[in-house]
Amino acid sequence: MTNTVKIFDTTLRDGTQGEGISLSVEDKLKIAQKLDALGVTYIEGGWPGSNNKDIEFFNRASELHLTHAKITAFGSTRRKDTKPEEDVNLRRILEVGVKVATIFGKSWDFHVHKAIQTTLEENLSMIYDSVKYLKNQGLEVIYDAEHFFDGYKNNKDYAVQTIKKAEEAGADWIVLCDTNGGTMPHEVSAIVTHVCAEIKACPVGIHAHNDCELGVANSLAAVMAGATQVQGTINGFGERCGNANLVSIIPNLQLKLGYNVISSEQLQGLTPVARYVSEIANMALPVNQPFVGAAAFAHKGGIHVSAILRNASTYEHIRPELVGNKQRVLVSELAGQSNLVFKAQEMGLEFSNDNSQSKQLIEKIKQMEHEGYQFEGADASLELLIRDAYGKIEEMFTVESFKLLVEKSADNPSVSEAIVKIKIGNETVYNAAEGNGPVNALDNALRKCLLQYFPNLQQIHLSDYKVRVLDEKDTTAAKVRVLIESTDFNNSWSTVGVSENVIEASWHALIDSFRYALIGQECTPQSADDQKERVGLVNH
Amino acid sequence: MTNTVKIFDTTLRDGTQGEGISLSVEDKLKIAQKLDALGVTYIEGGWPGSNNKDIEFFNRASELHLTHAKITAFGSTRRKDTKPEEDVNLRRILEVGVKVATIFGKSWDFHVHKAIQTTLEENLSMIYDSVKYLKNQGLEVIYDAEHFFDGYKNNKDYAVQTIKKAEEAGADWIVLCDTNGGTMPHEVSAIVTHVCAEIKACPVGIHAHNDCELGVANSLAAVMAGATQVQGTINGFGERCGNANLVSIIPNLQLKLGYNVISSEQLQGLTPVARYVSEIANMALPVNQPFVGAAAFAHKGGIHVSAILRNASTYEHIRPELVGNKQRVLVSELAGQSNLVFKAQEMGLEFSNDNSQSKQLIEKIKQMEHEGYQFEGADASLELLIRDAYGKIEEMFTVESFKLLVEKSADNPSVSEAIVKIKIGNETVYNAAEGNGPVNALDNALRKCLLQYFPNLQQIHLSDYKVRVLDEKDTTAAKVRVLIESTDFNNSWSTVGVSENVIEASWHALIDSFRYALIGQECTPQSADDQKERVGLVNH
Repeated sequence: MTNTVKIFDTTLRDGTQGEGISLSVEDKLKIAQKLDALGVTYIEGGWPGSNNKDIEFFNRASELHLTHAKITAFGSTRRKDTKPEEDVNLRRILEVGVKVATIFGKSWDFHVHKAIQTTLEENLSMIYDSVKYLKNQGLEVIYDAEHFFDGYKNNKDYAVQTIKKAEEAGADWIVLCDTNGGTMPHEVSAIVTHVCAEIKACPVGIHAHNDCELGVANSLAAVMAGATQVQGTINGFGERCGNANLVSIIPNLQLKLGYNVISSEQLQGLTPVARYVSEIANMALPVNQPFVGAAAFAHKGGIHVSAILRNASTYEHIRPELVGNKQRVLVSELAGQSNLVFKAQEMGLEFSNDNSQSKQLIEKIKQMEHEGYQFEGADASLELLIRDAYGKIEEMFTVESFKLLVEKSADNPSVSEAIVKIKIGNETVYNAAEGNGPVNALDNALRKCLLQYFPNLQQIHLSDYKVRVLDEKDTTAAKVRVLIESTDFNNSWSTVGVSENVIEASWHALIDSFRYALIGQECTPQSADDQKERVGLVNH
Repeated sequence: MTNTVKIFDTTLRDGTQGEGISLSVEDKLKIAQKLDALGVTYIEGGWPGSNNKDIEFFNRASELHLTHAKITAFGSTRRKDTKPEEDVNLRRILEVGVKVATIFGKSWDFHVHKAIQTTLEENLSMIYDSVKYLKNQGLEVIYDAEHFFDGYKNNKDYAVQTIKKAEEAGADWIVLCDTNGGTMPHEVSAIVTHVCAEIKACPVGIHAHNDCELGVANSLAAVMAGATQVQGTINGFGERCGNANLVSIIPNLQLKLGYNVISSEQLQGLTPVARYVSEIANMALPVNQPFVGAAAFAHKGGIHVSAILRNASTYEHIRPELVGNKQRVLVSELAGQSNLVFKAQEMGLEFSNDNSQSKQLIEKIKQMEHEGYQFEGADASLELLIRDAYGKIEEMFTVESFKLLVEKSADNPSVSEAIVKIKIGNETVYNAAEGNGPVNALDNALRKCLLQYFPNLQQIHLSDYKVRVLDEKDTTAAKVRVLIESTDFNNSWSTVGVSENVIEASWHALIDSFRYALIGQECTPQSADDQKERVGLVNH
């Protein structure tokens, strides 16, 4: 029995059927490049016979520089009573020029009768003809046996017949799909064992879903029973409860069960790929996601932080670096704080229980957390606090005041205006601006003030804005926490603000964002005279 | 081998160690009541020897009306070289007056030497003495063998010795803990099988973690190998990647593997409990969570919606009602819409592709979705739209305008004031109010207007407020979507607003919330004369 398992990634096809996930062609191309670097063997790019938009992806896939992965197109077996060469679905697969086709067919007699309303015999022909046709066109053909496990449990003989037909027609892979996601691992084990005994001409794969929170377990069970291909998605994206999560499957297979899947170096790229795909898909990577989540290796240190660091192997199931993640040690006095120690260390600052600056910082953070601040996901605000405590920041501006006015009548668009007063050096700078909303108005007014002195800030813009109410019992008087993500196209950073007033909370987060951006900036605040000179009011 | 499995819930202890989770004593008591109703056998309330705050929970636990569940306190075996009766940790367990104690001890020789720095013999005595002591005090004792699987894999004999000591001392349960979360299901299976052969005097349990995304699988494997207690948390809350998720384990055991866990009626309460605990813990329940997530049974209907509804059993791994969830059929023309058909049906309205009101409604929703509206999680706004389309709503008020002013200087608290003008019947109602923030100010002003006419609205308050930026590329001019959850203590409902202006978006969501609350309200809008009469300005 071989030790190698090949990965078939369907993030771009099955994964996009999840709620809230929408990928442009550009997004898909970027992800495909990353998947190739990760070491997957097959990348399912879309379903050209069903989604016209997918055709563009396949057309542009030639722009990709793939070292290893093969692009495949998904589609159905031919329609009943139709010749394969006349089936639009199959022809689309050929038209998009892929070298690998992945076609799915019915394995469950009930579906044959009710869903496609044909005979069991015709369904077998549909499978045979479609695989044969594509093989004759020179393609590699992966046959996905849809609803296989339910089909097998309801009519074992017929289910096996369907895949034997695919095998007979020359399929390069037979993949058993747990389409409803309801099969138990021991059932997968038994069924895959049987199928591997029946199917000799080609290898077998597994395509599991996560409806019972067993997508990963079922995939591992299938491999241990003889499957050598695993289909899934990055981060388990997909409809309902998602597809089997490749990000957990790959390290389990490789580090725990000893299979060859990808190289060690590629495995170290797992966490960055998981994050990258999450960002592109606009889905937050859960902090508690196995292997790659920010909290996956976060230890409550207690008093014996150093003991844990010394004996990490007995408190961690794997070394986080193997999958590109990091160990984090939580400082016990801080209820929610998670990366304080690490961050300070990253910044080259000494952090320990004995250092007086550390103690002050811990006290400050405790107090802020009590007010509702949470620094997970707000690294830039945390860094500003650390710099404050260690005297490693030079404030480029201070805030004096703001006024904000929002008006809306009837069906007219609302109007938002802000007036902002700050001090830069000795200069008081006062500006007003309109905006599409209050935060936009404040942001515009603040920029007007700052850009005169720090033109580099031009490139910064807001990329995300989250508000959460704390202390529900306080209802509309409750504190709100605002998290702002800012970016200048190269980097992005997050800042936080807390107040009962959502505008004030946003204001704090905005201010922190600019303070962070100005760290280490070459600052030449121009005097009022220089300003006037620039606009031609003073003659040199 | 018995068919019954008992559930041990550690949401209130291990679960609270997760990042971002913080439960007050009040929260814990509420959750405990729900857990009892769900049918769990043991509720681990806290660790009194480690967290003083937990003592209050145990003191107040007597207020609970528990029909079935037993409250247990967690703690460590006695310290080395200390008599159990002098060990603070054990004494705290007794002091809080529980009838069940759950104590953990070392199973791994390495930890005995390095972490607690004592001899293997002394560790065995620590286990024996602690269990014996608590048994002699009349308690039921559950012994948690910490790091058992790693300990077993490293030194099988010693690991088995530790649990045999607990058995010898009279432990009522021996629970094997996969503390690092790194064990594979087939290993759990083999090890639990062996342990069940060794331990005869008491039943065996399993405590798994989710670091390999196998918490559920490992728990099921343990039960199939002879364990009759499963420890875990609701929604898999817990540190790092969480504890084994009871919300997936219970239906898997009962509906798939045929074990007796809780009653069918209690199982129907699974989804409400999962949601309730999420809300209290202020963690969003993921839409894709197995069994209980909003999308767990959401089908892409395509053209054949009716075909799926007819043959649901072949497209769903279980009937959603069994766990208190619902089927949702996505209307294919609507990209994100998920519960339109279902909702209309729930309201007794005809909804089909042929009905002209349905078509208009679909068009309206498509247009709004294009603007950024999303009705998942905003059922009340959706219902209002449906009522609008079918002419089933009587508008109690219409909105004329609002003005909002927010000011902040230096370190003074910010000031927010709102002026709102609406029409109720023929009356124009105009009011101003202050607030802790702009949404609070608008809410207060709006209430001032409405409460004069609809005093029942008094009980309504905001319980959650979420803002998300859409179209990041539009940066600070991007549209924002505001989701508001309102409650009147009996019910809660969610409404949505979209605009580039976060205040305007909040305003729309607020208005919808009141419109929804006023549906079917007995409405007697008082005339201005009645008003004056009520304040004594007019004589009858």
